Amino acid sequence: MGKYAIGIDFGTLSARALIAEIGTGREAAQAVMDYPHGVMDRALPDGTPLPSDWALQHPGDYLACLERIIPEAIGRAGISAADIVGVGIDATTCTLIPVDRDGTPLYMLPGLEGEKHAYAKLWKHHAAQKYADAMTETARERDEAFLTRCGGRVSSEWLFPKVWQMLEEAPALYARTDRFIDAADWIVLQLTGCEARSSCLAGYKAFWNARDGYPSDSFFAALDPRLQHVVDEKLSRRVQPVCTRAGFVTERAARLTGLRAGTAVAVGTSDAHVAPPAAGITETGRMLMIMGTSTVHLVLDGAWHDAPGICGAVKDGIVPGLIGYEAGQCCVGDHFDWFVKNGVPEAYAREAAARGLDLYALLTEKAARMAPGESGLVALDWWNGNRSVLVDAGLSGVLMGLTLATRPEEIYRALIEATAFGTRVIVENFEAHGLALSDIVACGGIARKNAFFMQVYADVLGREIRVAKSAQTAALGSALMGAVAAGEAAGGYDGIGRAAAEMGGLLEARYAPDPAAHAVYDRLYAEYLRLHDWFGRGGSDAMKRLKNIREAAPSGRRGRK
Amino acid sequence: MGKYAIGIDFGTLSARALIAEIGTGREAAQAVMDYPHGVMDRALPDGTPLPSDWALQHPGDYLACLERIIPEAIGRAGISAADIVGVGIDATTCTLIPVDRDGTPLYMLPGLEGEKHAYAKLWKHHAAQKYADAMTETARERDEAFLTRCGGRVSSEWLFPKVWQMLEEAPALYARTDRFIDAADWIVLQLTGCEARSSCLAGYKAFWNARDGYPSDSFFAALDPRLQHVVDEKLSRRVQPVCTRAGFVTERAARLTGLRAGTAVAVGTSDAHVAPPAAGITETGRMLMIMGTSTVHLVLDGAWHDAPGICGAVKDGIVPGLIGYEAGQCCVGDHFDWFVKNGVPEAYAREAAARGLDLYALLTEKAARMAPGESGLVALDWWNGNRSVLVDAGLSGVLMGLTLATRPEEIYRALIEATAFGTRVIVENFEAHGLALSDIVACGGIARKNAFFMQVYADVLGREIRVAKSAQTAALGSALMGAVAAGEAAGGYDGIGRAAAEMGGLLEARYAPDPAAHAVYDRLYAEYLRLHDWFGRGGSDAMKRLKNIREAAPSGRRGRK
Repeated sequence: MGKYAIGIDFGTLSARALIAEIGTGREAAQAVMDYPHGVMDRALPDGTPLPSDWALQHPGDYLACLERIIPEAIGRAGISAADIVGVGIDATTCTLIPVDRDGTPLYMLPGLEGEKHAYAKLWKHHAAQKYADAMTETARERDEAFLTRCGGRVSSEWLFPKVWQMLEEAPALYARTDRFIDAADWIVLQLTGCEARSSCLAGYKAFWNARDGYPSDSFFAALDPRLQHVVDEKLSRRVQPVCTRAGFVTERAARLTGLRAGTAVAVGTSDAHVAPPAAGITETGRMLMIMGTSTVHLVLDGAWHDAPGICGAVKDGIVPGLIGYEAGQCCVGDHFDWFVKNGVPEAYAREAAARGLDLYALLTEKAARMAPGESGLVALDWWNGNRSVLVDAGLSGVLMGLTLATRPEEIYRALIEATAFGTRVIVENFEAHGLALSDIVACGGIARKNAFFMQVYADVLGREIRVAKSAQTAALGSALMGAVAAGEAAGGYDGIGRAAAEMGGLLEARYAPDPAAHAVYDRLYAEYLRLHDWFGRGGSDAMKRLKNIREAAPSGRRGRK
Repeated sequence: MGKYAIGIDFGTLSARALIAEIGTGREAAQAVMDYPHGVMDRALPDGTPLPSDWALQHPGDYLACLERIIPEAIGRAGISAADIVGVGIDATTCTLIPVDRDGTPLYMLPGLEGEKHAYAKLWKHHAAQKYADAMTETARERDEAFLTRCGGRVSSEWLFPKVWQMLEEAPALYARTDRFIDAADWIVLQLTGCEARSSCLAGYKAFWNARDGYPSDSFFAALDPRLQHVVDEKLSRRVQPVCTRAGFVTERAARLTGLRAGTAVAVGTSDAHVAPPAAGITETGRMLMIMGTSTVHLVLDGAWHDAPGICGAVKDGIVPGLIGYEAGQCCVGDHFDWFVKNGVPEAYAREAAARGLDLYALLTEKAARMAPGESGLVALDWWNGNRSVLVDAGLSGVLMGLTLATRPEEIYRALIEATAFGTRVIVENFEAHGLALSDIVACGGIARKNAFFMQVYADVLGREIRVAKSAQTAALGSALMGAVAAGEAAGGYDGIGRAAAEMGGLLEARYAPDPAAHAVYDRLYAEYLRLHDWFGRGGSDAMKRLKNIREAAPSGRRGRK
């Protein structure tokens, strides 16, 4: 009988358990469960309404999932819990839970179920924006080194803005909070009884770095004197590298989950940064694009490079010993979702229905018939601002070259090309700053489902692109972490490199660039770059002025982001 | 019993007769008939196929319409032909007919019905583009004065490119052509037996002007030695001012039409330039916008002004004694037609159907609920290039400020606003070059049907806009021409001024600018202008490069314009 590892990926709406065979990576079984309370963005369970931009979760849901999906996956795999040598956990981040001394989320305490600040603030809780902005400003004034490593701007999705918001808006609850803990670390705590704060989560979402730790107390004091000792009072300076063991499944957790008590549990990670090993990537120079509603670009390197416009650079953030560089495009799948909902005419919907296709398939089919450059269109893919390399949420989308002959599939194709051009900017930015890329790998829904999309990327980049073997790189990546947490002696691995080589990997298919298409795209990319720099690097502030006009409009306050 | 005039407007697809009462302008009756052969753009009646960009007409259709709609209108009006004192004719232009010595169109001659060059080349026959381009180039090299008056570029829709095309492509037929005549002049010839070439048609479509006549023989010789004497050989130097009498209905024409022989017939005009008197405009400083698929802007003035980017400046072109200045936007109604067909999602089509609205009405309703500036969008309305003031067909459309929250009605509104900004550029250009505008009047389908559209224009321009009383300004304008051709002694008028004052005019409704909206639009217009000048005046040649890339694409030759 083989040995197995189990990875559990806590997404925004559901959790997924995946059991993978040690030595082969064969995916023996999966189980998925939606969170009973989903995303709470309108009201608490007792009906207490939530302000706009709030997004909460109910960490009890995570335990409910563990209780259901682990036994379900074990049953489907037809194995025994004793065959599972290790467990890995990843989650959305920063999804931040205020807990008491026992690690109990505050909302579970008597009398606090109606307190919105007592729940987990989900990664996409954006109501802490003003705290993020104030933090950026203070860090700029003080020339804080961490700001460069995180792209020059503090995101409202990160840890400290959420902490600060609670201090300001619910000081009594803040006082009752023994500490704040990220969801993945909290789940690991539930399984092991050990608080093993992850270098990945601390590094990418909380300004921590392996050499200097957290920003100085004086920085926090400059934000608010009450925050001066926030790290010591409400977090922990003990941060543990990823790919190490956090602890072992406790008797109590074994009863909850059906896992064997004493099974190794890895330090938690984020659902993005756990992916590279699942694609076989644990070495330098190989870029992974995780393509979903947005795209995350991850590259490992041994040295520090001062690449502008990245979202993070964290030593031990992805694999131990290397620096994990992260860049991002904040509007990829979302872009096409917007277009399909807002820009595709009824005639196309009728054609798609008549032919049993969805609109994506119809648009892809029509767009694929066209030659590069044929539409005469070029777009700036900034419908949701620009993360890398401009780091500017105030930018907006542009579509240019429109004529009376422009067809919807041409716009669709131009949007795909624009996101590919955006990726090329990121690739060239990495390379211009010392991060040479030997190859490019993609994972995520788009990468596996839309060959046309991937071919456009290969043609635009002028590089071969390969795709991760697993459709569930996050859950598989967590299983790898579990296998490494177990160690070779227990049937796992002693290092992530061999685990990734044996259990991760790529599909056979290769998207090779077509030289003729690439030559046309070189010309279109030059146009993209000119517009990119003109509107993004100070040639024209038109987008900012339009945003100001929009925000000053009488109804401009409705829920736009 | 009152006296009446009849105006007959020959459009692209049909002819319309309108009988209006002298003294009041009351529209007593109308009759319309589609051309039996419509627009021939694929094949001749005998099946001979036509190349792309060809568009022909069958002038026999014009006579068939005269025969049907004049008696029909007289019958509906319940009057006698003897009550009609004058007839006016307008038509699309330059719709050019090659005729023999008798005025018979060549295609009617035995053996020529299969010759495509023997038919009338419709205004939108674009197959003479290369002759137009060569003509522009030669005129530029020679610094020909007429080029400035027509906006710096020769359009393929005008007379001489069509003549030159026939000389090149069908020299034998060219030799058999006794002369070329514009459709309106030809119809007048059929009614009166008199060839009275109109100052309007010669001026706006054939480089003629009241002081110098046609361009010099040496210009034509520079194009092609065979064209040196084209004016004397194939046209006529005798050009007659509009608002004068061409002749009287002949016995033969009386039998055809049911008009009384001896009824006065006015010199023909174009279907655009005949409109101002129908809106009551015969004096200086009042701009008429004729809003349809495109918009034509007409202003009268007593002096010559060197306004760049206009499409024409013709003395006696609209009313005698004044110079008629013309500017244009080549994508107005067409713009919204494109958007409704290509950019409005199925959900909107379903909502419209459920509520019994058309898509325009639904979009207008939704767009009207928004505040100026609220969308954060700004567009360059160049989906079909830019006529005034940039005179550049190689420009293309831009949409900017897009976000994931952008809705179709916001794009719709941004396109309306963009055409209004384009109008404001034209208005400011007129005024900056000495053509002060005292008021602005609109006519055409959009002006009468879409109050929201007109309010946006008023708010953008910061000026009151009024709308012509008649829904058929061309046909009514022609009726006014007929009344003037008759003269006061015969029950008509001795001048167009009084005719227009009594028979033309405006609706009561006034679109007054809202000061708050105008203030926001001032800011958006500043953004429009910056983009306009950046992409249109040499800041960036991106649109030209995109066009070059498009035209070099393997399938880039398909029918785009």
